[in-house]
Amino acid sequence: MNPPLRIAIAGLGTVGVGTVKLLQRNADLVAARAGRKLVVAAVSAREERRERGIDLAGARWFADAAAMARDPEIDVVAELIGGSDGIAREVVAGAIAAGKHVVSANKALLAHHGTELARTAEARGVALLFEAAVAGGIPILKALREGLAANNVTRIYGILNGTCNYILTAMRETGRDFADVLAEAQQLGYAEADPSFDIDGIDAAHKLALLAAVAFGNVVDFAGVHVEGIRHVSALDIEFAAELGYRIKLLGLARLTPHGLEQRVHACMVPRSTPIAHVDGVFNAVVVEGDFVGRVMLEGRGAGAQPTASAVVADLIDIAKGRWSQGFTLPATALARRPSAPMARHIGAYYVRLMVVDRPGVIADIAAALRDEQVSMEQMIQRGRAPGEAVPVVLTTHETEEAAMRRAIAHIDKLDSVLEPARVIRVESL
Amino acid sequence: MNPPLRIAIAGLGTVGVGTVKLLQRNADLVAARAGRKLVVAAVSAREERRERGIDLAGARWFADAAAMARDPEIDVVAELIGGSDGIAREVVAGAIAAGKHVVSANKALLAHHGTELARTAEARGVALLFEAAVAGGIPILKALREGLAANNVTRIYGILNGTCNYILTAMRETGRDFADVLAEAQQLGYAEADPSFDIDGIDAAHKLALLAAVAFGNVVDFAGVHVEGIRHVSALDIEFAAELGYRIKLLGLARLTPHGLEQRVHACMVPRSTPIAHVDGVFNAVVVEGDFVGRVMLEGRGAGAQPTASAVVADLIDIAKGRWSQGFTLPATALARRPSAPMARHIGAYYVRLMVVDRPGVIADIAAALRDEQVSMEQMIQRGRAPGEAVPVVLTTHETEEAAMRRAIAHIDKLDSVLEPARVIRVESL
Repeated sequence: MNPPLRIAIAGLGTVGVGTVKLLQRNADLVAARAGRKLVVAAVSAREERRERGIDLAGARWFADAAAMARDPEIDVVAELIGGSDGIAREVVAGAIAAGKHVVSANKALLAHHGTELARTAEARGVALLFEAAVAGGIPILKALREGLAANNVTRIYGILNGTCNYILTAMRETGRDFADVLAEAQQLGYAEADPSFDIDGIDAAHKLALLAAVAFGNVVDFAGVHVEGIRHVSALDIEFAAELGYRIKLLGLARLTPHGLEQRVHACMVPRSTPIAHVDGVFNAVVVEGDFVGRVMLEGRGAGAQPTASAVVADLIDIAKGRWSQGFTLPATALARRPSAPMARHIGAYYVRLMVVDRPGVIADIAAALRDEQVSMEQMIQRGRAPGEAVPVVLTTHETEEAAMRRAIAHIDKLDSVLEPARVIRVESL
Repeated sequence: MNPPLRIAIAGLGTVGVGTVKLLQRNADLVAARAGRKLVVAAVSAREERRERGIDLAGARWFADAAAMARDPEIDVVAELIGGSDGIAREVVAGAIAAGKHVVSANKALLAHHGTELARTAEARGVALLFEAAVAGGIPILKALREGLAANNVTRIYGILNGTCNYILTAMRETGRDFADVLAEAQQLGYAEADPSFDIDGIDAAHKLALLAAVAFGNVVDFAGVHVEGIRHVSALDIEFAAELGYRIKLLGLARLTPHGLEQRVHACMVPRSTPIAHVDGVFNAVVVEGDFVGRVMLEGRGAGAQPTASAVVADLIDIAKGRWSQGFTLPATALARRPSAPMARHIGAYYVRLMVVDRPGVIADIAAALRDEQVSMEQMIQRGRAPGEAVPVVLTTHETEEAAMRRAIAHIDKLDSVLEPARVIRVESL
């Protein structure tokens, strides 16, 4: 058997501890599949003497993760610290400079500095793999890079944030409103005390930027992602979605358009007949549309110690077997630098919910505003009658350019009989 | 750039033509991802001069596929002929003996001779890859071998035959009976003139034997698969399934039990709340349960020229990049030879439909037969009343050993008031 692969674990939070547990518990299986042993040779974390339920007797302790990353007795560094800059970046850059392979679960770091880090890794001839950074245990990056490598990807989209999917699922199942379900999710540990990274779509946008780079052979363009979260989704919208045959999901979507690479993260109306509409709770899913393979969906747990460790160790096994290839499919120097397609040029259908005074002529005014922008209405629902009082009116449109839609909404929002700003949710044809 | 990879295509049926088309249409993309060109250097098929809509001007023609497989100007042979023996086997064995890599889409060949062929390929130091043999375009073998390699697989199951899934979906959606829907599927080209390979479960069993071998590191044991088809599934059963909260799917399932490797293909009652219950029409799906990753599902097109070509070329790219590894995850010589678990020892729940004479005491007799075998009933449905006439009675059981269930059914079938043999469908907890 080949000599063991000596691994340094930087960061002993949930994922770091999960990775050590996997490497210990499944040591024989991993060694058989890798053709050599994978040993945890060194670890580094903020506090040394915390009880973590793992045996670290065989590993050297480093107070300084950056020093560990340069240590000559190490073959691979697993960066499981997190954060787009600071010590995580220092560890990864330092390890690459010292000629070590790197495995990282850090989506923020890679979304911001992925292209540059990949370029340095290739120049040094070392691996930079990050399966765990996107959709947890789902082996989607390997599928894009290798299993589906024969395809031109025409579109990629997915449910990339388990917290949002949990909240939207619970809202649908219980009829409760966003703030209420968020508070519960925080109590249950499914949402952070400061939840904005998740519910404002930033975490999903990090992952989408990585997916798009791998799928389309583009540089990682996090700044080009249009990001909206789910704070504005109300129980009423979820109810109307059901009535119209949709479910509301936070999706990340990317495709090439005549205006450049379109990357967007926002709440979507998804037809209930599509497979992704049935991906509920904390599960994630990614759909790849390829010119030969058609539609392929991968679904699984997108977070958590154990699924993430599964992805980290898969990358380590690839390195142990020497079968790794470029993290972004193509050499970093060969990645395209496409412009990012402006959202104003986005073509799609829309759901619009208005609160209006129930009196004659209101619908005519709204219809006129849409007509003036050449926006074609698909259907309109006004439930119940309450003359002179506020009632919801919901409409959906046929495909139109987003700029036209925005102008029509600006006009509608100024109508006297419209009582609050319109709630707009994009309708996706999947 | 490295020298081109010279490919010989053996067989120009649907898949062979699809593969040539992909290699031509996506030539630049494939070359960029493989780091070298992939060229179709030679082809062989039964008839030379048939119009196939592809340009074969650059390829040498071989009347004898076995001679082509030994040709010194060839690096890889793609065996796209089909059939468990005969010329397909000769081509694959000959190519390996001549030191060529082999890619095959031939599930029958691999289900019968996979272990032996893998052993000879490893001895010769060449690749034997067969992603296209299981679930068409879905990159499930790569996921098992690599993306999920850190996991002990606890169970694997899937919808592995698109023809059966199309028929069962159409039966559910239209309420029509099996024979009727099969005839329509044959007209539409979704089922063969001789459909038995598909509808009797043999095709799914070939694929399951390959999945189980890769997932559990076992020799391929097609003879150990318990196989039933879908001919006995009636419109009435599908109706009762809906009433009980289930859908009926033909699944292939494999897991390790105390009695050995359990592999079975049969119609199943699947809870409607599970993701696989929503995989409809010609789509396939495979669910992998791993000790760290949890449940991962991959869904996509399981057949057809284009999806299958996607899988064939993915394997060719892996060979071009030199990143292939053993087809069955472990070296063929290291594969386990577990006994196959007898179905009589299977533990599961059951759905039973009986046609009985509607008269007092019938249910008591049935209940007594179950009790005598320690089979515990979960629920019982008798719809409508028609004293003295035939009515259906449906019951489901709690988990029990299949041997006990069979004894109880044998007893029930002999009761005077039971008019036809019981229809039994296993209920899966997924």
